[in-house]
Amino acid sequence: MHFADRLCAAIDAKGSAVVVGLDPRPESLPPHLLAACRAELGDNAEAVTEALWRFNRGIIDAVHDVVPAVKPQLAFYERYGVAGLEAYVRTAQYAKEAGLLVVADGKRNDIGSTASAYAEAFLGAPGDFTADALTVNPFLGRDGIQPFVDCAQRHDRGVFVLVKTSNPSAGDLQDMRVDGRPLYEHLGRLVECWGESSRGQSGYSSVGAVVGATWPEQAARLRSLMQHTLFLVPGYGAQGATAADVACCFDDRGHGALINASRSIIFAWRTERYAGRYSEVDYGAAACEAAQRMGDDIRNAQHRLSGAG
Amino acid sequence: MHFADRLCAAIDAKGSAVVVGLDPRPESLPPHLLAACRAELGDNAEAVTEALWRFNRGIIDAVHDVVPAVKPQLAFYERYGVAGLEAYVRTAQYAKEAGLLVVADGKRNDIGSTASAYAEAFLGAPGDFTADALTVNPFLGRDGIQPFVDCAQRHDRGVFVLVKTSNPSAGDLQDMRVDGRPLYEHLGRLVECWGESSRGQSGYSSVGAVVGATWPEQAARLRSLMQHTLFLVPGYGAQGATAADVACCFDDRGHGALINASRSIIFAWRTERYAGRYSEVDYGAAACEAAQRMGDDIRNAQHRLSGAG
Repeated sequence: MHFADRLCAAIDAKGSAVVVGLDPRPESLPPHLLAACRAELGDNAEAVTEALWRFNRGIIDAVHDVVPAVKPQLAFYERYGVAGLEAYVRTAQYAKEAGLLVVADGKRNDIGSTASAYAEAFLGAPGDFTADALTVNPFLGRDGIQPFVDCAQRHDRGVFVLVKTSNPSAGDLQDMRVDGRPLYEHLGRLVECWGESSRGQSGYSSVGAVVGATWPEQAARLRSLMQHTLFLVPGYGAQGATAADVACCFDDRGHGALINASRSIIFAWRTERYAGRYSEVDYGAAACEAAQRMGDDIRNAQHRLSGAG
Repeated sequence: MHFADRLCAAIDAKGSAVVVGLDPRPESLPPHLLAACRAELGDNAEAVTEALWRFNRGIIDAVHDVVPAVKPQLAFYERYGVAGLEAYVRTAQYAKEAGLLVVADGKRNDIGSTASAYAEAFLGAPGDFTADALTVNPFLGRDGIQPFVDCAQRHDRGVFVLVKTSNPSAGDLQDMRVDGRPLYEHLGRLVECWGESSRGQSGYSSVGAVVGATWPEQAARLRSLMQHTLFLVPGYGAQGATAADVACCFDDRGHGALINASRSIIFAWRTERYAGRYSEVDYGAAACEAAQRMGDDIRNAQHRLSGAG
């Protein structure tokens, strides 16, 4: 089944467009989890990567009924070398078995046969690193995107191309004025065009875009330019964007966007809002409530926007 | 010792500015190597990744006296999952022990704490993936570069920021006109500026740039704008650039650039020029001769240029 159709179906089935970022940091894990792994394996790197995996398993167990997808950020696994990547492999596998789509956030990029090698790793025949979709960086131009797009299409997977990222300095390059318009607009048109031949029955293509929720006006403009492009939207929660900020990323059927939050969900048990009711052993329950609340907030904001419009 | 100074010293010691790309592809390996691994380990993925590693070891044994550095392309290891990355780890370790600098070609990029996680993985305290330098992608702006630069500086390592890549569609974004000048020129100035506080005694900073040899005029222009920035130069050999094309990337002491070739060196035994004299078992000797010849060609082109100038 076409990637965009699978994603839209999963969003409908779960009644949520939230994608939970699996960005575990040892210093933010529930202390009992790390302690248990150290008691079993010793005070070593193996205990740390085992704790990363067990933490993710707990999050997946808690949220798999209420969200359509998870997004492991590869940097947090690579950080711990080969053992860290083994924790990623186990996490991605476990998430798939729990019925979740997996978006590998790797922002990979290269050209020609090198881009094909990355694409095969993440979007090809089933292997260690295979995910349902991969984030990719467009700086190298079409040569750097096409191998990912081709591989994704062959295997009913997807890509999300960075267009306007959520970080404060996103504009250093992305807002540069080219022929009177910001670079991200030109790029948005290119991405819409790169996906033209790979649209599913949902109307969306397997070539999506990363559009930061921290720039709501720009996101609204990009939504109008890219009507067949799924948005993967970072910036919600810890980075400051709200449900009202992301509402414009959806179409009027509630499709077209996947809204990411990482820290505000997976470490919800540490936040002021949840700390009173959940202890560290209930980190999964806190994450589930945070993910549900985020889904509700977004739905309400969508309704307000469509009511207003 | 400061990264740029170490690199300049290594270039002087070896009398060569060639960096050998370790981009092994199973289909291009000497058949006897793959056959031996399959005889030992079975016709499976483990045999393939073992062959990748043994191939690299043979190349390193052959070239470590004649070149200053190697550049493993991470995609070709990730392609084979965790076992592929184990082959990278062994390769990088072996290259360091052989006295070579290791440039990890990963084109990593992200923001804030995520960029820091990548930086720690490749440029931090010794670990599985640690290299002397890492290639990084600047699309996310300064937030996406600074964590790499800071980590590199703390550990006397380096980064090479993509500025003008060697591929045909590099210009899709990189040549866009911004205030009357191509984007890559603006970016080149930014990179020169990002490296300002991390210059070594050689005059070069630990923040280098990737500048494709396939665009010699643009490279010459960038060299004049970026007098304290080391260039990592892809595009030589299989991608079509010649010694004359790369000569402008150097300063008049023969420093300032590291010229990469991958296929034309590591698979030299398969090429018309060497196939008559080397069989597949001599792939290392063919690679050594190809690397030396390339170094000589570049030195001669430099002399011709400085003689003309």
